Amino acid sequence: MDFLSDNAAGVHPAILKAVADASGAQPRGYDGDQWSERLDAAFSDLFGTAVKAFAVPSGTAANALGLAACVPPYGGVWCHSEAHVDVDEAGAVGFYTAGASLMLVPSPAGKLTVDALDAAAARRRGDVHQVQAAALSLTQATECGTVYAPAEVAALAGWAKARGLAVQMDGARFANAVAHLGCSPADVTWRAGVDMLSFGCIKNGGMAAEALLVFDAKLAETIPVRRKRAGLMPSKGRFAAAQLLAMIEGGLWLESARGANAGAQALAAAAPKRLLYPVEANEVFLRLTPAERETLRAQGFGFYDWELAGPDAARFVVRWDQDKAAIDALAAAIARLG
Amino acid sequence: MDFLSDNAAGVHPAILKAVADASGAQPRGYDGDQWSERLDAAFSDLFGTAVKAFAVPSGTAANALGLAACVPPYGGVWCHSEAHVDVDEAGAVGFYTAGASLMLVPSPAGKLTVDALDAAAARRRGDVHQVQAAALSLTQATECGTVYAPAEVAALAGWAKARGLAVQMDGARFANAVAHLGCSPADVTWRAGVDMLSFGCIKNGGMAAEALLVFDAKLAETIPVRRKRAGLMPSKGRFAAAQLLAMIEGGLWLESARGANAGAQALAAAAPKRLLYPVEANEVFLRLTPAERETLRAQGFGFYDWELAGPDAARFVVRWDQDKAAIDALAAAIARLG
Amino acid sequence: MDFLSDNAAGVHPAILKAVADASGAQPRGYDGDQWSERLDAAFSDLFGTAVKAFAVPSGTAANALGLAACVPPYGGVWCHSEAHVDVDEAGAVGFYTAGASLMLVPSPAGKLTVDALDAAAARRRGDVHQVQAAALSLTQATECGTVYAPAEVAALAGWAKARGLAVQMDGARFANAVAHLGCSPADVTWRAGVDMLSFGCIKNGGMAAEALLVFDAKLAETIPVRRKRAGLMPSKGRFAAAQLLAMIEGGLWLESARGANAGAQALAAAAPKRLLYPVEANEVFLRLTPAERETLRAQGFGFYDWELAGPDAARFVVRWDQDKAAIDALAAAIARLG
Amino acid sequence: MDFLSDNAAGVHPAILKAVADASGAQPRGYDGDQWSERLDAAFSDLFGTAVKAFAVPSGTAANALGLAACVPPYGGVWCHSEAHVDVDEAGAVGFYTAGASLMLVPSPAGKLTVDALDAAAARRRGDVHQVQAAALSLTQATECGTVYAPAEVAALAGWAKARGLAVQMDGARFANAVAHLGCSPADVTWRAGVDMLSFGCIKNGGMAAEALLVFDAKLAETIPVRRKRAGLMPSKGRFAAAQLLAMIEGGLWLESARGANAGAQALAAAAPKRLLYPVEANEVFLRLTPAERETLRAQGFGFYDWELAGPDAARFVVRWDQDKAAIDALAAAIARLG
Repeated sequence: MDFLSDNAAGVHPAILKAVADASGAQPRGYDGDQWSERLDAAFSDLFGTAVKAFAVPSGTAANALGLAACVPPYGGVWCHSEAHVDVDEAGAVGFYTAGASLMLVPSPAGKLTVDALDAAAARRRGDVHQVQAAALSLTQATECGTVYAPAEVAALAGWAKARGLAVQMDGARFANAVAHLGCSPADVTWRAGVDMLSFGCIKNGGMAAEALLVFDAKLAETIPVRRKRAGLMPSKGRFAAAQLLAMIEGGLWLESARGANAGAQALAAAAPKRLLYPVEANEVFLRLTPAERETLRAQGFGFYDWELAGPDAARFVVRWDQDKAAIDALAAAIARLG
Repeated sequence: MDFLSDNAAGVHPAILKAVADASGAQPRGYDGDQWSERLDAAFSDLFGTAVKAFAVPSGTAANALGLAACVPPYGGVWCHSEAHVDVDEAGAVGFYTAGASLMLVPSPAGKLTVDALDAAAARRRGDVHQVQAAALSLTQATECGTVYAPAEVAALAGWAKARGLAVQMDGARFANAVAHLGCSPADVTWRAGVDMLSFGCIKNGGMAAEALLVFDAKLAETIPVRRKRAGLMPSKGRFAAAQLLAMIEGGLWLESARGANAGAQALAAAAPKRLLYPVEANEVFLRLTPAERETLRAQGFGFYDWELAGPDAARFVVRWDQDKAAIDALAAAIARLG
Repeated sequence: MDFLSDNAAGVHPAILKAVADASGAQPRGYDGDQWSERLDAAFSDLFGTAVKAFAVPSGTAANALGLAACVPPYGGVWCHSEAHVDVDEAGAVGFYTAGASLMLVPSPAGKLTVDALDAAAARRRGDVHQVQAAALSLTQATECGTVYAPAEVAALAGWAKARGLAVQMDGARFANAVAHLGCSPADVTWRAGVDMLSFGCIKNGGMAAEALLVFDAKLAETIPVRRKRAGLMPSKGRFAAAQLLAMIEGGLWLESARGANAGAQALAAAAPKRLLYPVEANEVFLRLTPAERETLRAQGFGFYDWELAGPDAARFVVRWDQDKAAIDALAAAIARLG
Repeated sequence: MDFLSDNAAGVHPAILKAVADASGAQPRGYDGDQWSERLDAAFSDLFGTAVKAFAVPSGTAANALGLAACVPPYGGVWCHSEAHVDVDEAGAVGFYTAGASLMLVPSPAGKLTVDALDAAAARRRGDVHQVQAAALSLTQATECGTVYAPAEVAALAGWAKARGLAVQMDGARFANAVAHLGCSPADVTWRAGVDMLSFGCIKNGGMAAEALLVFDAKLAETIPVRRKRAGLMPSKGRFAAAQLLAMIEGGLWLESARGANAGAQALAAAAPKRLLYPVEANEVFLRLTPAERETLRAQGFGFYDWELAGPDAARFVVRWDQDKAAIDALAAAIARLG
C-alpha cells in the first residue's frame, strides 16, 4: 500500500543470488576480480559502443563523480531547476567539483528545452567575472515522471556541444525511460550526444550499486582516482560488480521497469483529469486537495505531498515489486474521489 | 596459497544471510529501516557507551569522513608516516576536508609515540602562517601489524587532548588488535581518549560496509550531511546496516579476527629471526632476499614486496578464512629457507 | 564622459598620501605595523562597537572570505538572484567555502523582502538530502542602486536570526547607502542584526584595499588563517591598512559618496520617466531604446547595456570624482531624448 | 639594526612614484588599463620569451594560484621539506588545488637534488591508491639562502619532465638568486625547463604586488578565472601592474637585490666558521649559542632563532634598504663573538 519511494523496494532474487555467488575468496581485492573486470564489456554490449563502467554506491555518487570529471572547480552545470542534483543531493556536486555552480533553468514538466536554455544563457556573459558552464545535466526520466525522446535529447545535447559542454545524464530511472520509449539504450544516450550516464539500478530491484557509464573515454580518465579518493572504490569490488551484471546481463533491468511503468499507467488511467504531468515512467503526480489526500491516507495508502508542484500536489511512485492488488486498490480509491 | 591481502577474503555466511534477510520491501528508503535504526544501539552495547554509528562503503570513506568532521580545511592531522590515510587512500583526507594537511611523523614499527610527536611538534610554530593540527590519527592495528596497548593509546590521546586535538582511530584491523589485546573494545578506544573509530569489517569477513563510530556526540553532528553529500548514504541503507549488525551482534568480528591472528602467529613461529616487527595482528613482515621470495613464489605463495620497509621486506596477510593447510605449507616453506 | 564603472575612478589624494607616509622600513612585516594594529580600533570607533577588521585586496575577497567563516562546505547562502556574489564573482563563494551553494531569491529592484524569502524557503525541506542555509547575504546599496532602510535590514536579519543564519552584507557601495540614508553606519549594520560587512573603499576613491568588518567576534575567529591561506594577507600589510584608515578617519568615505550620489540625482532628475528603479545611491538605470543609446554614445558618453534588467535597459554609474560638467552634459543629453 | 625579515623593508621611491602616476581616473577597471595591458610584454622582454604575467597581492597567492593551474585536486607536488609552500603558507596549496598533497623531500641546505627525488619516488607506487605527483616546486633562492645554478635547475626540471610533471618556481627571492648567479633570468627559468615562476617584488623594494609568470601558455589558460574567483583580481588593476613595471623596466629589481646580497656577504665574511649554509643570496644562517644570541640582541640587533636548522641556529636577512652602518655594526659584533 506504500507508494512513497522506489528506494524502499525489495531486491530482486537474481541480484541476491549474484551476490551470494561472488562470496568466496578471490585472488585480489578492489577491482581485481572477474566480475569487476567484466563490467566494461557487459555495458559496452548493452550500449553497442565502448563504455567505461564504474560501480558506485549511490546515485548521488554517480552524478557527482561524473560531473566532477567534466566540470572544473570554477565551472558550472546547466540543469533543470527541479533536478535531483540540486534539490536532493545535499550539494554533492559542489563537494565533488570543489565548488562548481549549478545553473538552474526552470521549464515545464521537469523537461529542459532549447528555448529555456537559450533564455537562461542570454542573461549571462562570457567574461572572467562569471561562472562559465562546462556541462549540461539531463534527468531521464525526469523528476516529474516525464521522458525525453531521443530527438529531444539530441537537440539539447547539440545545444550543449555547440558551446563545448559535456552532457551528463542522471538516469536514476533510466530503465523506466527506456521501457517507455521502446528504443535501444544507445538511442537516447551516446547516439544522441550524451557523454556519461548514471545508470540507476537500486530503485529498480538492485541492492547497493549504481553504474556510472562513460561513453567518452577521455572524460573517464580521471574517474578511477576520483572514485578511490572519494572512498567509493570498494575493497571487495566484486559484490557491486556482480549486482550490476545481474541487472543487465539477462535484461532484468527492462523487465522490472516495464512492470513498474505499467502500474503507473494503471494509476493514471484512474484519474486522467488529475494528472499534473504526462505519466511516462513509474511516477504519477496528481492534483489532490488536502482532504482528498487525507481520504487516501486513511485507507492506508502512503505517498508524499509534493510542494515543488504546488500546494495541491501529491506524488505516487510505483515500485518494480509493487503488489498488483495494491495498485488496483489505489486506482479504485482515486477513482472514487471523483 | 594467497597471502596478498585480506581484501580478497571471502564473506562470512552469516553476513550473506543477513543481507538476504533484509531483501524484502521496506516502508522507507535511506536509513529509515529497522536495521539502520538499530545501529547506534548495537554499537553502543558493544562499546558500553553512547555511540553514533554510520555505515560507509569503505575504510577510506570512514577515515576521511570522520576526519572531515574534526578538521577544518585549514587544519592538519598528525599521523604516522606510513599511515594508510597518507600512503593508500589517494588523498581522500585532502578531498573530504577540502584541503587539510597530513602531518607525517616517522617512528619505528608503525607506532607513534609521544616522543616522536613531541619532536615533530617542536619543529612547528603556532602562528597564522603554519597549518595547525586539529586531530591525531592512530592506526590500530598499525600498518606494520603491531598493536597499541590501551595505555599507549591513552598516552597518545592525552598528548592530543592537551593540545585540543580530536583523536581518530583507523581500525581497518581493529578486530585483530582487540583479539590480540584481549581487552574490551572500550578499553582501547573511548576509555583511552579516542573520539572516533573506523571499525573495519570488510577485511574481516564482511562484504561491503564499514562502520564509522563516533564516541563524542558533538563531533558526530555534521556527519549525516557530509555522508549524504559524499554519496555515501545508500538509498537502501538496510543492506549495509544488516552487514554490520551481523558482524557484531554474535561476536563474529572477534572470532574471525582470532582465527586470522592465530594463522599469523603460526607463520611468525616459523621464522622468528626474519621478523621485521612483532607479530600482533594478522600481518607478518619478513626479511627475505629476492632469491628467497622467488623460491616462495615458485611454490605458489602470493605476497607483496614491501618497499616501505626496505628492499628485503615482504608482507604476508592471513585472512579470516585462510586455509589451515596453506598456512602450514607456507610456514614450512619459510622454515626451509633456513 | 565615462559612466561605465566606479572601478575606473581615480584615487583620492588623501589615500595616495597615506600610502606614501607608510613607505619607510618597519620593524615587522605582515600585520605587525602601527597601521594594521590600528585598524580594529578605527573601525570600532566608526561603528560604535567592537569590530574585527581585515584588509583584503578586493570586494570579491571580502565577500567570499567572510561567507566562508559563516557557512560550512555543506551549507547554503540565501541571496538575491542578481547579487554580485552570484553574478559577478566567478564562483568565489563556492571556492572559499569549498562548495557551499548560493540559493537565489528573485525580487523587485534588487531588494530582498521577507515575503520573497518565505516563498523561497517554503519550497525547501530541512532534511539531510537538501542543502541547508547557513547565511543570508544582503547587498547595500543593491545591484539596482536601491538602498535598504535600517528597518528593512532589521526585518531581513530578524528572519535570518530566527533560522540560525548569519547575516553578511556586501557593502561595495555601503558608503553611498549610508550617505543616502543619513543614518549612522551602525544603524544599518550591527544594530539591525548584520554580523559582517564588506566595507567598500575602492570604488569610492580607494586604491587597492577593502575592509572585511566582523561584528560578531566568534565569527571572526577563523578569518586570520583563512585570509593567510588564501594569499590575501599582504607581507607588507601597512599599505592596505593605511589606505583604509585614510578613508575612514577623516570622514572621506562619506564625503566622496555624497558627491557621487548627488551626481546620480542630477541624472535621475533629467529623466524621471525613464527610471527603472528609484535612484538612491550612485547608479542610475534607465529605459533607453537601442537608438537612444546609440545617440548618447555618439556624443561620447560611456555606459553599459544592462541585460539583467531587460533589452531596453542601460546603467550609468557616477564616480566620486566624476566631472561636474560631464554629469550636466549627460543629463542634458538624456533630457533631449524626450 | 633589524635583520628579521625583508618583508619589513621600505618601498623604493620609484615604486611609490609609479603608483602615484597611475592614480587618475581610467576608462576601465580591472585589468583594462594601460599598465595591466603592458605587463605581458614587459615580462616577455625581460625573459626573452612569451610570458603571461599576472599581478597578485602576495607570494603565497602566486605560488598557490600557479600550482592550482598545474595540479589537479587528486595530484601531488614534490617540494623540499623546508619549502615555504609547506612551512609558511598555511596550507594555501591545499586550498587553491582543492586538496592536493605536498610531497616533502628532505635534502641538505634547502636544495633538492635528483638523488633525493629518486629516493623519495622509489618509496611510492603508480597505482590509483596513491597520490600521483603532477608538479615539482623549486625555491630560488632557497629557504636556506642557497641558489640553484642553471644546470642544477635543468637537471631537476629534466627529472620532472621525464615524469610528466610541471615545474613551478617559488621566486620570492628570485632577484637575489639572479644577482648572485650573474646569468640572465631566462637561463635559470624557462631555458632550464621551468614552466612558471612566482617573481618576487615585495621583499625587494616593492609594495603590494608580486608577479606570477607563466612560460607555458597552455598552463596559463585557467589562471584568469582562478585569479578572479580567489578575489586576487583587483578592481583597479593598474596599481599592482604599475608597481611591477616600475620594478623591472629600469632594472631596479637586480640593483636592489645586488645591494642586499652584498650586505649578506659582509656578514658572512665576519663569521666564516659559523655559517650553516653557503651565503648566496641575502640570508645568512649562523651557528650561535643562546648566550651569543643574547649578546647580539642586547646590542639591539634583531633576528630570528631558526629551529628548523637546529637549536643553535639563527637567521639574519639583509634588506635592500638596510643601513650600511647597521651591517658593519652587526658584522663587527659577530666577529667579536670569536
